[in-house]
Amino acid sequence: VKVDLGERSYPIYIGEDLLSLLGEKARFHNLSTQSPILIVTDVNVGSLYLSKTQSTLQKYGYTIATHVVSAGESSKCLGELGSIVTSALEAKLDRDSTIIALGGGVVGDLAGFAAATYMRGIRFIQIPTTLLAHDSSVGGKVAVNHPLAKNVIGAFHQPAFVLYDTTTLKTLSIREVRSGLAEIIKHGFIHDESFVSWCENNIDKLLTLDADALSYAIHAGCSIKAWIVSQDEKESGLRAFLNLGHTIGHALESVAGYGELTHGEAISIGMCGAALLSSRLGVASDHVFTYTEGLIKRFGLPTVIPERYATDAIMDAMLHDKKFRGGQMVFILPNSIGKVHIHKGIPVEEVRVVVDLLKEGERSHVR
Amino acid sequence: VKVDLGERSYPIYIGEDLLSLLGEKARFHNLSTQSPILIVTDVNVGSLYLSKTQSTLQKYGYTIATHVVSAGESSKCLGELGSIVTSALEAKLDRDSTIIALGGGVVGDLAGFAAATYMRGIRFIQIPTTLLAHDSSVGGKVAVNHPLAKNVIGAFHQPAFVLYDTTTLKTLSIREVRSGLAEIIKHGFIHDESFVSWCENNIDKLLTLDADALSYAIHAGCSIKAWIVSQDEKESGLRAFLNLGHTIGHALESVAGYGELTHGEAISIGMCGAALLSSRLGVASDHVFTYTEGLIKRFGLPTVIPERYATDAIMDAMLHDKKFRGGQMVFILPNSIGKVHIHKGIPVEEVRVVVDLLKEGERSHVR
Repeated sequence: VKVDLGERSYPIYIGEDLLSLLGEKARFHNLSTQSPILIVTDVNVGSLYLSKTQSTLQKYGYTIATHVVSAGESSKCLGELGSIVTSALEAKLDRDSTIIALGGGVVGDLAGFAAATYMRGIRFIQIPTTLLAHDSSVGGKVAVNHPLAKNVIGAFHQPAFVLYDTTTLKTLSIREVRSGLAEIIKHGFIHDESFVSWCENNIDKLLTLDADALSYAIHAGCSIKAWIVSQDEKESGLRAFLNLGHTIGHALESVAGYGELTHGEAISIGMCGAALLSSRLGVASDHVFTYTEGLIKRFGLPTVIPERYATDAIMDAMLHDKKFRGGQMVFILPNSIGKVHIHKGIPVEEVRVVVDLLKEGERSHVR
Repeated sequence: VKVDLGERSYPIYIGEDLLSLLGEKARFHNLSTQSPILIVTDVNVGSLYLSKTQSTLQKYGYTIATHVVSAGESSKCLGELGSIVTSALEAKLDRDSTIIALGGGVVGDLAGFAAATYMRGIRFIQIPTTLLAHDSSVGGKVAVNHPLAKNVIGAFHQPAFVLYDTTTLKTLSIREVRSGLAEIIKHGFIHDESFVSWCENNIDKLLTLDADALSYAIHAGCSIKAWIVSQDEKESGLRAFLNLGHTIGHALESVAGYGELTHGEAISIGMCGAALLSSRLGVASDHVFTYTEGLIKRFGLPTVIPERYATDAIMDAMLHDKKFRGGQMVFILPNSIGKVHIHKGIPVEEVRVVVDLLKEGERSHVR
C-alpha cells in the first residue's frame, strides 16, 4: 500500500516474515549508517522480537540503541517521552538518525511523537505487531496522553515506511485480535460496503488468523485509511470520518480507566451508538443499526455499555473530547453501510438518550 | 515585517503601545470568539502586562484563561508543558482556540511548543517583551529543554502574528538590553554589512533605548531573519547561518548552568570564537576577528570565556549539540563582515585550541 502525501508519501509493506528484510529496506530508504538508530519497544514485544530486529539492522552496518517501556497505555505519557529523549541523547542520535517503533499502537504513538519532536523532528519507521496498529500506522497521527485526556499532546509526523510482518500477529491473544478487527471493520463501514460483506463472509478465517485473509483485511483497511488521509492530511474535513465510533468510544475508555476496555471494544460500542443516533435522527434506516450491531456481535465484540459506567461521567468525558468545536456536538454518523457523513449541531440531550439506550439494562428499549 | 512562508506567512507588527490594539488585531486575523484563548506568561511580565492584555481581548468579546509560570529557563521543561495542557483542558480550549505567549524567549518557546502539540496544533500569537525575543519570534522554532540538552524537544510552528510593543522594552534591565542587542548584531554579521555599520554608529542610542533606533534595529534584525527563514523554513541549509556563535554559545550556557550567562552573552563569546576559528583556518582575515571582538566589547558584551569553565566540559557539551551531523564538526564561520558560510569537517582539536584561546587567562596568545 502506498500512502500518497506528496513529498511525505511512504509505503506500507505487508507480508509474512518481513522483519528479516528490515536491514535491506532501511538501506533502500537511504537511512544513514553514520547515525545511530533507536528502537523503542515494550517489554512484551521486546522479549519476542527485539533481538531479531537489532541483528537484521546490524548486519547492514547500523548502530543500534534500544529503549524498552512497560507494556500498556500508561507508558504513553510526557514522562516516558523525556526518558526516550534521555536514551536518544546518550546514544548520540543526531538529525540524520531514525527512531523505530516496534510494537502496537502505544509504542507507535509514543515513539512517533518522540521522533516528531526530538531535535524538532527526525525520521521514523513503524513495525506494528498488533492488528489494531494497522490503523495508527497510516496517517502520521502521533501523541501522548495527559491525565485529563487521551492523545491530547501530539503532532502529525509521517513515517519513512511501515513494515507489517503478519507473522508477529500469531502471538496476539484472541481479545487483541478481535479488538484489531474492530478497526478494520470500521474502515469498511466508513467507505466500502463490499469490504464489509467480505468481512461478514470471512469471520472465522479472520478470527483464526488465516494468513491470506489477514493480509487481505490489513491491506483493505490500510488502503481505505490511506485514501482518506491522502485527501486530507491535517484533519480539516474528510479525515474526520475516521472518527466513526470514537466520540463515544474515547469517552468510554476514559471513564473505564485506560486498559479496562480495549480500544477496539470501545469503538465497537461507539459504532453501535453512532448507528443508533443516526437512526434516531432519521438519517439512516433502523436496518443500519441492526446490521452494525449484529456484525459486531458475530466478531465477539461488545455492543452495549457496561451498567457500571455512569452516564454523567460518559457525557463529561465527551465534553473534553477534541471533536467538539465551539461548544457544538459533532458526530460521524452512517447514512448506510459503507457511507458516513459529518453531522453537526446534535443536541446534547439526544446523545444522552443514546448513551442510556446503550446501557446493558436498557436494551429492551432500543428497538 | 512580513515573514513569507506561503500559506504559513505571518506579519510582525512593531511599534509603540501596540498592546492596546491586540483585540482589534485578533479580530482582523479571524480568531474565533467562540473558542477560549489561553495567555501564557511569567510572574514578572504577568505582573506588568497581563491585565492589560486580558482586558483588550475581553473588550472584543474573547473568553480568556491564563497560565503563569516562574520566570527563567527552568520553566522551559516537559513538566510545565503538562501543566499548560492541564490549564488548556480546564479552560476547555478546542481546536479553534489560540495560545498567546506574553513574554520573552522562554515563554515564547514554551507556549509555542504547547500550541504546536495541543490537540496536534492550535493557533499561536507571540507578544515578545524582550529585545532578545525579536529573534525567537521569527522562524517558528519552539521547544522545551531536557536536563541533558537545550531545545532538544520541539517543533516548527509558525504564529498567526507577532505583536512587538516597544513600550514593554522600557522595563528591561541594561543586561537584558545588551543581551538582546547581541542577537540583533548577529543578524548584521550574517547578512548585512551596512546594518553592522549602522549599529556601530548608534551604540549609545541603542543602549539607552531610543525609540526610533530600537524600532529600526528590531525591524532590520527581524527582516534579515525573516528573509533567511523564508528561504529555508525547516533548516536544511541556509537557515543554519542563524547559528553563528551558537555552537560555542550553547555549550557555554550548558556548562554555566542555565541562567548564569544570558543567551546574548553566550553567543557574543561564540561569535568571537567563530571569527577566531575562521581566521585560524585561513578563511577570513584577522581584521574580521579584531572588528567583531571590538564591536561586541563596545556594546558592553563579553568576548572571553570565564576561566572557571573547564575546556573539557565545554567540548563535551558541544558533542551533545544537535549541529553535528554524522560525527563531523560543523561551524558557521564568517568570510567577511556581513557574510558567513557553513564550514564542514573542522578537526575537533582546532576547535579545542580556539576554546582555550578564548579563555580569560590566555588572551595574550590570541594575537
